[in-house]
Amino acid sequence: MSSHLQSYGQRAQNFTNPAAKLLLETMERKKSNLAVSVDVTKTKDFLSIIDTVGPFVCLIKTHIDILEDFDPSLITQLKELSQKHNFLIFEDRKFADIGNTVALQYSRGVHRIADWAHITNAHAVPGPGIITGLSSVGLPLGRGLLLLAEMSTKGSLATGAYTDATLRMAENNRDFVVGFVAQQRMGGHHEDFLVLTPGVGLDSKGDGMGQQYRTPREVILDSACDVIIVGRGIYGGDTAESVRAQAQRYQDAGWSSYLERISLP
Amino acid sequence: MSSHLQSYGQRAQNFTNPAAKLLLETMERKKSNLAVSVDVTKTKDFLSIIDTVGPFVCLIKTHIDILEDFDPSLITQLKELSQKHNFLIFEDRKFADIGNTVALQYSRGVHRIADWAHITNAHAVPGPGIITGLSSVGLPLGRGLLLLAEMSTKGSLATGAYTDATLRMAENNRDFVVGFVAQQRMGGHHEDFLVLTPGVGLDSKGDGMGQQYRTPREVILDSACDVIIVGRGIYGGDTAESVRAQAQRYQDAGWSSYLERISLP
Repeated sequence: MSSHLQSYGQRAQNFTNPAAKLLLETMERKKSNLAVSVDVTKTKDFLSIIDTVGPFVCLIKTHIDILEDFDPSLITQLKELSQKHNFLIFEDRKFADIGNTVALQYSRGVHRIADWAHITNAHAVPGPGIITGLSSVGLPLGRGLLLLAEMSTKGSLATGAYTDATLRMAENNRDFVVGFVAQQRMGGHHEDFLVLTPGVGLDSKGDGMGQQYRTPREVILDSACDVIIVGRGIYGGDTAESVRAQAQRYQDAGWSSYLERISLP
Repeated sequence: MSSHLQSYGQRAQNFTNPAAKLLLETMERKKSNLAVSVDVTKTKDFLSIIDTVGPFVCLIKTHIDILEDFDPSLITQLKELSQKHNFLIFEDRKFADIGNTVALQYSRGVHRIADWAHITNAHAVPGPGIITGLSSVGLPLGRGLLLLAEMSTKGSLATGAYTDATLRMAENNRDFVVGFVAQQRMGGHHEDFLVLTPGVGLDSKGDGMGQQYRTPREVILDSACDVIIVGRGIYGGDTAESVRAQAQRYQDAGWSSYLERISLP
């Protein structure tokens, strides 16, 4: 059976990588294929949004480098929320340098990403050395990597031969590369990769800086992706109640599309 | 006359961007087309290397996000060294996200890159929105952007149509995009772009993680690039004296290749 027609829980067996297994098991248990991208610049807002949406998500996506008042104690609090609400953490760092440099960026600096992010991601443009560098840090820690196979922006160069080469790089590093950030299923019918998809919205078509949006149904059912990534569409509201309501709404939309998909004949 | 046969000082007039002008004027004045890439994780080493190589360089290239003991006061000290030794600062961030996100990564977070880096760089893979996002922050501050048109690593995907599309994106944003990180001259004979080239070494051919090295002469004379970027080849030595000697050696190698180039018939 093609992997995208299996349940998330069954698919945990298709992976050896601990982060991929844990993500799929979490999705099954919480009935959620929703990731929330928390793109705010103040720690207080960051933690508040995560605590509010936590019950509805399998994954929290961070840009740790935009937090102006970042402090190592934030990581402790983030980890506590991850335990409390049972979600994984995906630092959307989009590593894009040579192997030696990304190994330092991943493990060092004030952010020490490898210490706390179950999953991170990288562009394939530097070639396979970027995976060598990142896996030298992440694999011993049980971390997983996603490659950017496509982007949701207008005029993206991650198309055609670029996307194909990215896929080859993933296939050659299955122990560490657990999937893709992409707009559609990748890897054919027999090779199981996770596909996480940004640019998902129920109410808007774009942001004026090249970002384009699709609905959860288009992403999960039509394009057979696995995780919808939603940002301002969820936490744009003023009150915790409205944020909670949006998170619930996206969780339901993503999950019902998934149930429809795995019940396809 | 083709721009690469002009002197650096003459070429300052080919640019409207203040960072590009200042870099070219600095190169002419200091007789240096050498940038040193300072890839260390401790502030003490970082500042010490920069103070040692400062007299020999036009530009210091940083990875601010690998410094484990980063503190905002470091930026003050970095700026003081930049004044003392008369060099520009290039944060090698390799931005690679959507416009809205890179604008935050460039201006915010603990590192506040736009506040102190004269020049930064970005991958073209997300499409033109990445330039829109970065220029919304950097252009009012007089900053300049380089695009990654090629990479020096094995299996790089920045080739062919990807490189061509990157060049088009630069041509359409000449006020902010001042040039490229690339392995050869870009932009044809009439359009003047700066070309900064990493992967330069006099003594080594590679680093085991996909990085490949070429000599200053190959880069400046044969490939008509403008700035050689050298890292561990310069500061790998034990003593300040050996670091200074290597910096002098690379400055001389780069500059003599440049003099040879502009005296070509």
